[in-house]
Amino acid sequence: MANETETYPWERMRSLADSGDGASLETYLSSLEPREAVRAILRLEPDAQAKVLTTLSPAEAADLIEDVPDEQAADIIENMQPKDAAEIVNEMMSDEQADLLAELKEDNAQAILEEMEVEEAEEARELARYADDVAGGLMITEFFKFHEGVTAGEALDKINEMAEDIDEHFKRYAYVVSPLDRVVGVIQVRDLVLSPRYKPVADVMVPSLFVTDETPLSELKSFFDARPFAAVPVVDRRGRLLGIVRQSAVQTALSEQAERDMLRMQGIVGGDEIRDLPTVTRFRRRISWLSVNILLNIAAASVIALYIDTLSAVIALAVFLPIISDMSGCSGNQAVAVSMRELTLGIVKPFEVFRVWLKEISVGALNGLTLGILLGGVAWAWKGNPALGLVVGGALALNTMVAVSIGGTVPLLLKRFGVDPAVASGPILTTVTDICGFFLVLSFATLMLAHLT
Amino acid sequence: MANETETYPWERMRSLADSGDGASLETYLSSLEPREAVRAILRLEPDAQAKVLTTLSPAEAADLIEDVPDEQAADIIENMQPKDAAEIVNEMMSDEQADLLAELKEDNAQAILEEMEVEEAEEARELARYADDVAGGLMITEFFKFHEGVTAGEALDKINEMAEDIDEHFKRYAYVVSPLDRVVGVIQVRDLVLSPRYKPVADVMVPSLFVTDETPLSELKSFFDARPFAAVPVVDRRGRLLGIVRQSAVQTALSEQAERDMLRMQGIVGGDEIRDLPTVTRFRRRISWLSVNILLNIAAASVIALYIDTLSAVIALAVFLPIISDMSGCSGNQAVAVSMRELTLGIVKPFEVFRVWLKEISVGALNGLTLGILLGGVAWAWKGNPALGLVVGGALALNTMVAVSIGGTVPLLLKRFGVDPAVASGPILTTVTDICGFFLVLSFATLMLAHLT
Repeated sequence: MANETETYPWERMRSLADSGDGASLETYLSSLEPREAVRAILRLEPDAQAKVLTTLSPAEAADLIEDVPDEQAADIIENMQPKDAAEIVNEMMSDEQADLLAELKEDNAQAILEEMEVEEAEEARELARYADDVAGGLMITEFFKFHEGVTAGEALDKINEMAEDIDEHFKRYAYVVSPLDRVVGVIQVRDLVLSPRYKPVADVMVPSLFVTDETPLSELKSFFDARPFAAVPVVDRRGRLLGIVRQSAVQTALSEQAERDMLRMQGIVGGDEIRDLPTVTRFRRRISWLSVNILLNIAAASVIALYIDTLSAVIALAVFLPIISDMSGCSGNQAVAVSMRELTLGIVKPFEVFRVWLKEISVGALNGLTLGILLGGVAWAWKGNPALGLVVGGALALNTMVAVSIGGTVPLLLKRFGVDPAVASGPILTTVTDICGFFLVLSFATLMLAHLT
Repeated sequence: MANETETYPWERMRSLADSGDGASLETYLSSLEPREAVRAILRLEPDAQAKVLTTLSPAEAADLIEDVPDEQAADIIENMQPKDAAEIVNEMMSDEQADLLAELKEDNAQAILEEMEVEEAEEARELARYADDVAGGLMITEFFKFHEGVTAGEALDKINEMAEDIDEHFKRYAYVVSPLDRVVGVIQVRDLVLSPRYKPVADVMVPSLFVTDETPLSELKSFFDARPFAAVPVVDRRGRLLGIVRQSAVQTALSEQAERDMLRMQGIVGGDEIRDLPTVTRFRRRISWLSVNILLNIAAASVIALYIDTLSAVIALAVFLPIISDMSGCSGNQAVAVSMRELTLGIVKPFEVFRVWLKEISVGALNGLTLGILLGGVAWAWKGNPALGLVVGGALALNTMVAVSIGGTVPLLLKRFGVDPAVASGPILTTVTDICGFFLVLSFATLMLAHLT
C-alpha cells in the first residue's frame, strides 16, 4: 500500500510544490489529462493551491487555471498575493482573463489589475465589460492584424517573430485593416507563405465577413454552422476591429450554457456549484430558490385548507392529493423540456405560443386520459367506489392538460419578456398546476359528496 | 399584406419546389441561416419535403438533411423513393450518413443501401454498427491518406485533385500509413506545400497520436482539451486506420448529449422529441416514463393510507403532505443536478459516493433547518399549535437531509451500475423521499397525537 502509484494526484502535487521543484511539478501536471489536473487542484486546500500555482511558471499556471471553472478559479486567485496573481492573469488568453476578472470581487480585481502591465490591464478592463454570451465576451485579442500596405514578406516575418513570443496566438488567419482600423479583409496564413514577398497584403487577402461585439451566442452558432470558418473578426459599432471569436470558443460556450441551464432548471441559482465550494456558499445558492418554492408551495396548498370539510368527510382523498400534484408536475416538466430544447435549437420562436399550445394539448389529452383511467381505476378498486374513481381520475386527466399547456408555453412567454426560462418555468408550472389540481379534485368531490360518503 | 416578404419561408420553399426550379430553390435556401432552413423544412408536409429534396441537387439536399435532427431526417428520407433517397445519402458525410441509417427502419435502410454505390454502402454498413458516443460513431472517412513512400509532390497533386471532387474532405491534415494500413504519421497539408516535391512523405510527417474506435466521447473531450488538434485518427484493435474524428464533431456531440440529458431528466425517453413529430409518437414517448412514475407515486402515497386514523384526527396534516413531498423533491433534484454536472465535467468519479454524501449532508442540514423552521412556523401560526409546527417542521428538516443524500449519490451509483442517471435518478429520488417524508410526518404525528388534538 506504500506503493507510489497509490498516492492521489493532489498529494503528489502538494509534495512537489512543497519541495519547490517547479520543473518536476510541470512534468507531472503535463502527464495528467486536463480534467484530472483540474480535479486535483480543486481537492487541495487554498494554501496548497496557491503554492502549486506560484511554483509553476506563470505561463504554466495560466494554462492550468484556464481549465478550472471560472468561479473556482476566482476563489483560488483571490487567495494569492495580487502580485503573484497578476503574473498569472497576464499570461491568460484574453477571453479567459475577462471571464476570470468578471468573477473576482471588485477590490481584488482592482488590486490585480494594478499589478499588471498597463496595456494588458486596460484591455482586460475593456473585455470584462461584456456579457459572456455575446461576441465581445467570447473574443480573444491575440491574433494577427496588418495594414493593407504591408507586404506579404513583412507580414510573414512579423507572424514568425510574434508566434514565437506568444504561444497562444491564433495562427490560422491574419486580418487586414485600413489606416483607421476598419476590417477590410482576411488572409489564410498558409496562403501568405505561397505569395510573392513583395506583394502588399491587400492583393493577397479576400474580403472578410465580421460580427459586432454585441452579437449573441445563438447568432454566432448560426454563423459558424453555415460557414466552415475557424474564426470571425469582431468590430465595434463604428466598424473598428476589436478581436476575433473562434468557432471553438462558441462551441465551448454552448456546452457550458446547456450545462448551466440544467443546473438552473433544478434550482441552482446565482452561480454554478461544484462540491468543493464552501458549504455556506452552496447553502446560500440553493436556499434562495428553495425559499421561493416553499412559499409558492404553501400558497398552493392553502387551497386544500378551503376544503377541510370535504376532506374530513372523504379522508381517502388525502392519499391522492400528493399524487395529483406530483404527476401534473411530471407531465408539465416534459413539455418544459421540449420547449427549452426547441428554443435552444431555434426551431421554435418565442411568439409561437398558440402553435405550441395546440401541439401540447393533443398530447396532454392522450396522456391525461391514460393517467386518469389508471389512477381512477386504482381509487375505485381501493374503496370499491366508482364515484371516487371518477373524481380522482377526472381531476388528474384535466389537470394533465392544464400542466402541458403551461409547461409548453411558459418558457416561450418568459423568453419573450426577457426572463430566464430555465430558472422560472419550473416554479410557475408547479404552483399553477398544484392550485389547479387541488381545486379540481376537491371541488369535484364537494359536488359529488353524496356519492362519496 | 400581399407583400412577398410576408410569406413564410416554408411557403416559399414549397412553391419553388412545385415549379421545379432547382437553381432558385438552392439560391433561396442559401439565403437562410441553417436553423431557419431546418425550421422551414420541418414545417412542410411530408410530400412537400420530398419534393424539395428531389428538386435540389443531391449534394445540396445532403447539406440540408445533415442539419436536420437525425430522427426527423429519418422520417423525411423514409418518405422518399429509395432511389432518390440513396442519391442524397450517397452525398452525406460518413458520420452523418451512419447516424441517419442507424435511425431508419431496417427495411428502409436496406432498400436505400441497395441503391447506393457498392463501396459506399459497405462502408456505411460498417459505420452504422458503432454507438454514436464512441470514436467509431463520430469519425468521418473523408480524409487524405498516403503510403509512406509517396512523394510530397504526388501527395499534393492527389489532394488537389480529390479536394475538387469532394467538397467535404477534411483538408487540414493528411495521414501517412504503412503498407498494412497502420498509422505512422501525420502531415499538415500546408507544410506539404513548403516541402521539396521529391521528398517522400515519411520525411515530412511527424509521428501521430491516435485513438481506438471504441474510445468514449468523454475521453475524446479530454484528448482535445489537452491538445490543439483539429482531428485525431481512429484505428481498430489491430491498429488499422479507419477514419478520423474532428474536434468539432466531438464538441457538437457533447452539446447534443447535454441537451438529450436534459430531455431525459424530465422524462422524454425513447428518442428526442420535437413538436413536429406525430401526436401518437410523442404520446408514446412521454407516457412510458409517466406510467412508471404514477405507479411509483401510488406506491409511495399508500404509506398515507396506513395512517388514515391519525389523518382523520388531525386533518390539517393533509395540507402539509403535498408540500413536504414537493419540497423534498426540489432539494433532492438540486443535488442530482450538481452530481450530473460533476460527472459530465469528470471532476467526480462514480466511486466517490461517500465523499459526495459528506458534502451533501452538510448543505442538506442547513437547508433542512431553514425550510423546517419556515414551514413549522407557518403550521404553528395557522393552527396556533406549536406541536403541529414541530411535527411538520421536524419532518421536513429530516427529509431534506434524506433527499440531498439520495439526490447526490444516486446518479453516481446508477452510473457505476451502467444505468442512465439522467432517466432514472428523478423517479428513484421522488419515490424514496415521498415514502420517507409521509412516514416521518405521519409517524411523528401519531406519537404526538395527544398534543395535536
